[in-house]
Amino acid sequence: MKCTRCRGPANHRFPQHNLRLCDACLEIFITRQVEKAIKKFGMLKPGQKVVAAISGGKDSLALWQILLELGYEVVALHMTLDLGPFSERSLEASQAMARRLGQELVVRSLPELSGHALLDIVRANRRDFCSVCGSLKRYYLNRLCQELGADTLATGHHLDDEAGRLLGNMIRGHQDHLDRQWPVLEGMDVEGNGGLVRKVKPLCRLSSSEIKSFAKSQDLPAAYGKCPRSKGATLPYYQEAIDLLEDRMPGTKRDLYFGFLRRKQAPPPAPQPGGKCSRCGAPTHLEVCAACRLLMRADEWAKEMQAKRAEDKGGKDHEA
Amino acid sequence: MKCTRCRGPANHRFPQHNLRLCDACLEIFITRQVEKAIKKFGMLKPGQKVVAAISGGKDSLALWQILLELGYEVVALHMTLDLGPFSERSLEASQAMARRLGQELVVRSLPELSGHALLDIVRANRRDFCSVCGSLKRYYLNRLCQELGADTLATGHHLDDEAGRLLGNMIRGHQDHLDRQWPVLEGMDVEGNGGLVRKVKPLCRLSSSEIKSFAKSQDLPAAYGKCPRSKGATLPYYQEAIDLLEDRMPGTKRDLYFGFLRRKQAPPPAPQPGGKCSRCGAPTHLEVCAACRLLMRADEWAKEMQAKRAEDKGGKDHEA
Repeated sequence: MKCTRCRGPANHRFPQHNLRLCDACLEIFITRQVEKAIKKFGMLKPGQKVVAAISGGKDSLALWQILLELGYEVVALHMTLDLGPFSERSLEASQAMARRLGQELVVRSLPELSGHALLDIVRANRRDFCSVCGSLKRYYLNRLCQELGADTLATGHHLDDEAGRLLGNMIRGHQDHLDRQWPVLEGMDVEGNGGLVRKVKPLCRLSSSEIKSFAKSQDLPAAYGKCPRSKGATLPYYQEAIDLLEDRMPGTKRDLYFGFLRRKQAPPPAPQPGGKCSRCGAPTHLEVCAACRLLMRADEWAKEMQAKRAEDKGGKDHEA
Repeated sequence: MKCTRCRGPANHRFPQHNLRLCDACLEIFITRQVEKAIKKFGMLKPGQKVVAAISGGKDSLALWQILLELGYEVVALHMTLDLGPFSERSLEASQAMARRLGQELVVRSLPELSGHALLDIVRANRRDFCSVCGSLKRYYLNRLCQELGADTLATGHHLDDEAGRLLGNMIRGHQDHLDRQWPVLEGMDVEGNGGLVRKVKPLCRLSSSEIKSFAKSQDLPAAYGKCPRSKGATLPYYQEAIDLLEDRMPGTKRDLYFGFLRRKQAPPPAPQPGGKCSRCGAPTHLEVCAACRLLMRADEWAKEMQAKRAEDKGGKDHEA
């Protein structure tokens, strides 16, 4: 198999692009795709400071390396979730990548920031794990970005993530989510500690399998495997359905996502300043923002549990 | 396994409805679903005359039997396509069903009506087989309906057909098709031999597997197997993707289709009389309607072929 670019021996095959690439040309291809996405959607200004959310998976490690390669001032931020061995491996992978790149890694703990273990917040709110975890990660990433002096947050979401989410929203008719789906979400400046940072997805032109090939060929120290709590997540099902269609009709994945963006023509309007959360000052249309509501319920629940434990102990003391 | 309705022994299981049914209760369930669809979407007036397009497959045979059961005046119409053994089996199945029901079956040949073999029309137009066949079937079914004195045509399209088509249109962004997708398409009266009959899909609440169970339990003499020319059809791929999602998240198929109809709120507007085809008088916005264009190219092609054959023969005579 010959490399389509340099005619040397190739070891990566991408039927969706009718491409065969060697390791060196794969790097060029991947980097160019990211460059194209950044340019096409006006994600970043040359050399700008950007916080990259580093989970330790192949996608975020690739993102980190490529953004540095392209000359951006990258602040790498890893948020620990304390969900056992998976979380430990994720942190180790992020730290290994930091050493490899000779870069600093900012590490923050979601349980420390929130004052509760994630599982307790989930229990207290009787909500789906992924939705609680996602809400809080977005909330703290937004706040930490501002503390780190950056107005833009880059995440490792790729074409499979975007296409899967899009398909789910289409099938379930979530028009509000469809209206907001775009590779760049504009931020919002508001006075005080509030405000929303811009969110950009520089890997949106790359499929998961393309990034996997890149990560392997570059020997990125990525953590593989799934979050042990992601059992209820539906995104993988939609991605599976798209992979089936991609297999039968190559190009379907790109056609779905980029066709949707093309038909939309314009990005969604920037969010407009509304009210502020009475607890944390974050922008919200409600009295208290969604994250604070999760945390307040967790506070109440913790108090109830404490009271219950004290009662149980009192009962036992009495019996004794 | 007990029947959810009568508590007798059940032999059909439908996890999407949390139902287990015996043969007798399955018949009631299936008939009620058809009744509901007819009522909900205002498909038919009680006892009205309706042409049922009978292909000989399980869906159309079930449709025929149920419409009779519900008291409609059904004119069963089978269109032969002359595509070899598959077409022969389809005709035989339709005839067997006619005998079983003690009803007449109107049989018309598409090649005879059009004056060309289907494959010749496809070759002459260099178009995909399914799209040519579909266009011509719709055209002649519409015309034959009017000749048979009915203003409504019922087809055996089921939930899987509608959901699959919907998913394909969503993914490919075919907004005009999405705008028109509805279980009833209103007709249009125009003077002369033109006009469009109403089209209704009474099986739209039933999945393919539910109808299959019904056909087996009723021992319908259906022809199974696929059209030998359907290789390029994409609908089965979308149906496969939905089946995957249905398996992972039961109820997805119904949610996709009925959620879409619900959000739409109103049926698409009835077609408005525009121009008439200069060749056949059928309603069209063009000078010549789509079906006549297919046939005109087939006429030209047939003439060219004839001329070529005559030339070849002349050459041979000359050589001799």
